[in-house]
Amino acid sequence: MLTHPDDRALVAQLQATPNASQRRAIAKLITLLESTLPSHRQRAAEVMHTLMASHSGQDESLRLGISGVPGVGKSTFIEALGLFLIERGHRVAVLAVDPSSQISGGSILGDKTRMERLSTHEQAFIRPSPSSGTLGGVTQSTREAMRVFEAAGYDVIIVETVGVGQSETAVAGMTDLFMLMQLPNAGDDLQAIKRGVMERCDVVVVNKADLDPDAATRAQAHITSALRLFGLHGRHLSAEHHTSVAWQPTVLSLSALKGSGLDALWQTVQRFCEVQKHSGRWQARRHEQDLAWMWERVDAGLRQRFDQHPRVRAALPTLSEAVTAGRLMASLAAQQLLDMMDSDPAAAQSPPETP
Amino acid sequence: MLTHPDDRALVAQLQATPNASQRRAIAKLITLLESTLPSHRQRAAEVMHTLMASHSGQDESLRLGISGVPGVGKSTFIEALGLFLIERGHRVAVLAVDPSSQISGGSILGDKTRMERLSTHEQAFIRPSPSSGTLGGVTQSTREAMRVFEAAGYDVIIVETVGVGQSETAVAGMTDLFMLMQLPNAGDDLQAIKRGVMERCDVVVVNKADLDPDAATRAQAHITSALRLFGLHGRHLSAEHHTSVAWQPTVLSLSALKGSGLDALWQTVQRFCEVQKHSGRWQARRHEQDLAWMWERVDAGLRQRFDQHPRVRAALPTLSEAVTAGRLMASLAAQQLLDMMDSDPAAAQSPPETP
Repeated sequence: MLTHPDDRALVAQLQATPNASQRRAIAKLITLLESTLPSHRQRAAEVMHTLMASHSGQDESLRLGISGVPGVGKSTFIEALGLFLIERGHRVAVLAVDPSSQISGGSILGDKTRMERLSTHEQAFIRPSPSSGTLGGVTQSTREAMRVFEAAGYDVIIVETVGVGQSETAVAGMTDLFMLMQLPNAGDDLQAIKRGVMERCDVVVVNKADLDPDAATRAQAHITSALRLFGLHGRHLSAEHHTSVAWQPTVLSLSALKGSGLDALWQTVQRFCEVQKHSGRWQARRHEQDLAWMWERVDAGLRQRFDQHPRVRAALPTLSEAVTAGRLMASLAAQQLLDMMDSDPAAAQSPPETP
Repeated sequence: MLTHPDDRALVAQLQATPNASQRRAIAKLITLLESTLPSHRQRAAEVMHTLMASHSGQDESLRLGISGVPGVGKSTFIEALGLFLIERGHRVAVLAVDPSSQISGGSILGDKTRMERLSTHEQAFIRPSPSSGTLGGVTQSTREAMRVFEAAGYDVIIVETVGVGQSETAVAGMTDLFMLMQLPNAGDDLQAIKRGVMERCDVVVVNKADLDPDAATRAQAHITSALRLFGLHGRHLSAEHHTSVAWQPTVLSLSALKGSGLDALWQTVQRFCEVQKHSGRWQARRHEQDLAWMWERVDAGLRQRFDQHPRVRAALPTLSEAVTAGRLMASLAAQQLLDMMDSDPAAAQSPPETP
């Protein structure tokens, strides 16, 4: 299975006791996975096969998505939670999905001094957001890295996002529990929650409760009331999954800075895991996520072949313009483009070149 | 452009004064569009091109999406609104997206007696939900029918859905204004809103306000409060569209049965249209919807070619199982499947057969 001479050692290092050489092996494997060289991808595939055949680590892991606007205190919270978990015997990996990092020049996790104590802890691994620039690329890379950390024995994988564009949906789609952090301003002053995010939340954390406990309580009540309007629904329409969707989104307030409320939060997380595992939703969600990931990559690959077809490339601007101008029905434009691919097998079949 | 001898007459009938022969021409064109025979699709394409080149009707039309659970009073409301609009000189088409109609055996609009007065009115056209059974098929067919009605001079196109599965998202994605109907139960008793729907709402209508005006008022306040948590967001993050997103979701209560509140509703709809057109969001939303539709059909066509590839079909069950069992990383499975298509150009290029 392992054709490259170095890879037996790589697997051994990844599966060994946590130490500096395991850290280097993790970095090495992620580099292979992200490489555009076919030979590297081939090696990465072989190593992943070998790792997952013996111990994927997936059964023991918790994948925790965390989102919140800048200033909500994500770094402080993740550092506090990470150290709290390490004290209890866990190993913690922190990944990030931040498709803006390349554009803005500063990844949300690029600056490791942000989480000084956690980043230097030997039971923690903080990986900055990959800066591929596209959400699809960043998501793909983070998902693969997650499997590497699991195979290496990390059992709490935290995926952080600042929520640019669709990144929150992406993170909710790759984690077992999706958590939104909010600031404690009550009522109308409550910072608006981005469309599409509230519905993906399993837990909402009102941070900085120490600054104004009353405001935090009001915010908690306000968000709970809004969530109820959505949360109930799971009970009625769970038939599509043939399982009872028993978890109702929960709102907590805490202070990451003071470290207060972490115990209650972790109890909530553990209760969530129990409820989900008992109802079958835990495994069902992972299966759905895995298959969705596979199809997402298939569709991306098919689309890449399509985009690179010479006749399609030539015709696309004109057809798109005709569609938006209302001169051509979109379905007919699509059919014309697809016919172009079929009409020219040779060109259609030239394998796409990865830049 | 028009190669079939009958099609010149067909175009003339579609563009003529509304009468029985126009109705027959509309039905005929929709049949051609939905046909699986390539010759029919070709004729439909030519007719649509001709229609859209001279008068697409898109500039004058309002596309109105309406959702609500069974029992909320959608039929009564649509009939009342339809007659209200016809009185004011509009022509009203009612379409439906109900992917369950084939399975349940009863389309939500199959029974025209549901809207007895509207369905027999010469200025209205009620089209039952196509029963293709898949959401993609139903959506496609409804979108195409919408263009036919617009070209025939219908200026208010109502698209109704009961909200099974993803049908509400589909309807919100093909209309200018998406409206959700609710029953007047206040507070915790308020029927839960399906995840992902609230965020797509432009207007919420609390129906049956005549039964309990106080409850309707409380429901209105409760929904407004929940919406505010989301609605504000448009102001902050509108940069992605380079336009001001000024419309805030609005909640009204009315009684479709008594016909009270329709005036206020229609004023709200007109205000929505003004705000959207002024901000540029009206046109931007339509452009996005048209392009999304085109890409949806392209992706569906690419996926169909993929699904029908013999090697892919043979390998898919085993690879999917390995992915969900955690033995194979999803991205590697996707790559294996894509490689299979590339490895066998002849098979990959056999055009898909439409059943």
